[in-house]
Amino acid sequence: MRRFAADRARRAVAASLRGAAASRSAAASPLAPAPRHPAPPVGAAAMAAALARTMSTAAAGTPPVSLNTINPKVLKCEYAVRGEIVTHAQNLQQELQKNPDSLPFDEILYCNIGNPQSLGQQPVTYFREVLSLCDHPALLDKSETHALYSSDAIERAWQILDKIPGRATGAYSHSQGIKGLRDEIAAGIAARDGFHASGDNIFLTDGASPAVHMMMQLLIGSEKDGILCPIPQYPLYSASIALHGGSLVPYFLDEETGWELEVDELKKQLEEARSKGITVRALVAINPGNPTGQVLAEENQKKIVEFCKNEGLVLLADEVYQENIYVEDKQFHSFKKIARSLGYTDDDLPLVSFQSVSKGYYGECGKRGGYMEITGFSPEVREQIYKLASVNLCSNVSGQILASLVMNPPKAGDESFESFMVERDGILSSLARRAKALEEAFNSLEGITCNKAEGAMYLFPRLHLPQKAIGVAQAAGTAPDAYYAKRLLEATGIVIVPGSGFGQVPGTWHFRCTILPQEDKMPAIISRFKEFHEKFMDEFHD
Amino acid sequence: MRRFAADRARRAVAASLRGAAASRSAAASPLAPAPRHPAPPVGAAAMAAALARTMSTAAAGTPPVSLNTINPKVLKCEYAVRGEIVTHAQNLQQELQKNPDSLPFDEILYCNIGNPQSLGQQPVTYFREVLSLCDHPALLDKSETHALYSSDAIERAWQILDKIPGRATGAYSHSQGIKGLRDEIAAGIAARDGFHASGDNIFLTDGASPAVHMMMQLLIGSEKDGILCPIPQYPLYSASIALHGGSLVPYFLDEETGWELEVDELKKQLEEARSKGITVRALVAINPGNPTGQVLAEENQKKIVEFCKNEGLVLLADEVYQENIYVEDKQFHSFKKIARSLGYTDDDLPLVSFQSVSKGYYGECGKRGGYMEITGFSPEVREQIYKLASVNLCSNVSGQILASLVMNPPKAGDESFESFMVERDGILSSLARRAKALEEAFNSLEGITCNKAEGAMYLFPRLHLPQKAIGVAQAAGTAPDAYYAKRLLEATGIVIVPGSGFGQVPGTWHFRCTILPQEDKMPAIISRFKEFHEKFMDEFHD
Repeated sequence: MRRFAADRARRAVAASLRGAAASRSAAASPLAPAPRHPAPPVGAAAMAAALARTMSTAAAGTPPVSLNTINPKVLKCEYAVRGEIVTHAQNLQQELQKNPDSLPFDEILYCNIGNPQSLGQQPVTYFREVLSLCDHPALLDKSETHALYSSDAIERAWQILDKIPGRATGAYSHSQGIKGLRDEIAAGIAARDGFHASGDNIFLTDGASPAVHMMMQLLIGSEKDGILCPIPQYPLYSASIALHGGSLVPYFLDEETGWELEVDELKKQLEEARSKGITVRALVAINPGNPTGQVLAEENQKKIVEFCKNEGLVLLADEVYQENIYVEDKQFHSFKKIARSLGYTDDDLPLVSFQSVSKGYYGECGKRGGYMEITGFSPEVREQIYKLASVNLCSNVSGQILASLVMNPPKAGDESFESFMVERDGILSSLARRAKALEEAFNSLEGITCNKAEGAMYLFPRLHLPQKAIGVAQAAGTAPDAYYAKRLLEATGIVIVPGSGFGQVPGTWHFRCTILPQEDKMPAIISRFKEFHEKFMDEFHD
Repeated sequence: MRRFAADRARRAVAASLRGAAASRSAAASPLAPAPRHPAPPVGAAAMAAALARTMSTAAAGTPPVSLNTINPKVLKCEYAVRGEIVTHAQNLQQELQKNPDSLPFDEILYCNIGNPQSLGQQPVTYFREVLSLCDHPALLDKSETHALYSSDAIERAWQILDKIPGRATGAYSHSQGIKGLRDEIAAGIAARDGFHASGDNIFLTDGASPAVHMMMQLLIGSEKDGILCPIPQYPLYSASIALHGGSLVPYFLDEETGWELEVDELKKQLEEARSKGITVRALVAINPGNPTGQVLAEENQKKIVEFCKNEGLVLLADEVYQENIYVEDKQFHSFKKIARSLGYTDDDLPLVSFQSVSKGYYGECGKRGGYMEITGFSPEVREQIYKLASVNLCSNVSGQILASLVMNPPKAGDESFESFMVERDGILSSLARRAKALEEAFNSLEGITCNKAEGAMYLFPRLHLPQKAIGVAQAAGTAPDAYYAKRLLEATGIVIVPGSGFGQVPGTWHFRCTILPQEDKMPAIISRFKEFHEKFMDEFHD
């Protein structure tokens, strides 16, 4: 009897657990996404399942998971920065290791990704001292520690530990990150912008990517939810929108004017999307630009803020390159600073700023630290964002500490200040020189034109390819810029990303190349590149 | 003219970017999920957008983002481990800080979450030494370092750095994680199981949670994709299934037999789901159990493997508590070992094993290290998993290093071995004593019955509440176990998670309580708990 009752109860809970699901399926919508492979009617599904069951027990049965059965959104997603060309490069690298003389070069040069330390950039000493101490707090009680670490790094480690409940760097933190570190970041933002910032608005994340995914997950419910994205764009955005099943609404940056972001273009694309029944939820602005390297003018940023305010859009501001500016006449302004300087408050505009420890002069990609500052969301919506953060518990605490350090680096008077500034300025001025050298090299070549890299870590040169090269590529089923990139890799070991991975005006061809190889290697890289390019152009001369 | 051509081209690319989306919408399916708020027809959508636009410019306009406009899957997702009761506890903690005499207790005791170091567990010295050195490799060249670090930690740090390309701990790694570390983990798995393991099958992740999300994202395309999950379950699974829009297919663990997993129950639930048109893709097994603490018997595991094999299911094995076993007569066997011992190879069964640095005797939750070992997937599907990993670039390198350390800790003969074993065994034997003490305390109380914690970090006692208490709770719109948890928190500062957050047989009430408070605090906690419970039972005596 007791068993029977339990059985009935189990059926009841099973039904209730599926209740919400069933009620959501009740209403049909003309715009609801259909699965890639429409489901057979229920009876047929049961039969198919029975068949699959039989087959899976057979020796050469159909595997339970195939490209036909996985989530079609995953299939649709593309991420060129680590795509086909990089896999090819990794294979060549293995070949080189086995047989160093097998290829016409002796190393692979990864210019595909903004990963400075992989190309020899050294970490900032002070930051690493503090991390090392926080990882092993027992050191702080030992006198020998002073022989190995600067005194302000020791002091800073103490301050950080005091902000962590129980000084436990190995504990899950608050899901937004450790409160004291968030407050420190907020103080850094306030000092940067001249406007108030609150630690309550900071969400610490494992790099900027999970923060972008979190916002896309929040904002996208179906394909009728659109996100305005620049073209060319950093493919994290197209990948994330695809994974969450939304619509990427492209707006085009203008190559002729140095990749300017024109508000007329935004308006046109917004209206076009709306006329197709897409509700545009947000606008992504990447400043400084990736892959394009432009730095937005203050006046331009104001127009973008006004546009988002008037159209009721969330402004998703990718500001991870905020420290990477290489021209005298431009400086970085956060979109929040612009909005506040226009008099807009939390009530006027939902705004998210993404920041990362992977970029800047620090380039600590492997540490996976970052944050988003969110303002202008209602308490109920913030609660939903918090819930999303809490499902993954928290971001890694070393990354959290590093995020607080980059937003509050050593100050004048600190023991490490001078050596810190030497390291910092050395990296930034070298990056500026490298950007200039590469840009000049590209522009010196027939068939390449290249805008200046005002900021970020990339150049995005345009390839004016001979018709014959385009024909050969297309006959091989490859985009012409992908064909060019493959040939470059095979001839020189240099890895770039074809423009087709970022989006571009159809009929134009580009590639993204980082400015990150160390300066002493630059002349050799440039001459290898030139040699390849000239041969390539000769080979396909019209 | 040139402008005009560019304009036309832009329209073309915009259309092509939306092409794939449109073609997916073409076919209608009776089972396709409908949005929570059905979309109005296109014309009306444009009108609504125009209206929203007008309103957003008004002073007290509708915010662009509200609970009505965000992704309904986010709304549906719940994560009780950091839910309402924890937010309430955090508020009480702030109250205590402001006014230490305002509450009938002087500290909040977080027994809601498996977060050992937050309750005073100390990190394992050797692991932290290695992490500290890898964070600041410059130390390795200095003679003073030997005064602060053990020689085998220094040696290990060198070995690890040699596995990292360019010794760059600050660079993005391969998206699966650093190859040399994966190989080391694979060697640890092979040593544990006695069967081959390959570094190519390891994906290093920021804790186990992102790995679980990745697999759910891969396997779930719509609500007709089901995942068999234990009830009670760790709510990461229900949350992740909800976020990815799938169907949780519950199977019930049997409390009367110590939370056994019965294959008959699996079969029954699978058939029931199939009869409703749900294609069940995978089975989640948590061993040792969370929140239930049971350790599966080897014979039982064999049946589960056979079941997955015969039914064509992916076996998702949550094995993060593999080091946490507290009974003499049980030991941990990985599902992969079980499958291989049955003679099944990669061709027979897709299997994923999740592991984390957050659990075990190390409890390094804040480091966010973990991995999944995937076997039995086709190369094409593996490529899709790799793509998902690559969109987030890589997991944090410190977490990767720690994952390699826990799978290859100091060995007999190493300088640190003895002190390491003292720390390790001290933690594990203390956990076993605490599990026993709490279990006995719970079972000594009227109205509570509690199964043994054979493993993991939790007890999941059943509350036999007086009808009057149930009535009061329900009148207040609260689940009776949530009401009990709230009263306990307010009376004692002890934070537990109500059973309703994990799922339970309807009409039964439970809570999850960690075994993690330090031993010297245990007697006081137990007596506070007893006092509360007895008063509570008296208050509501039938």
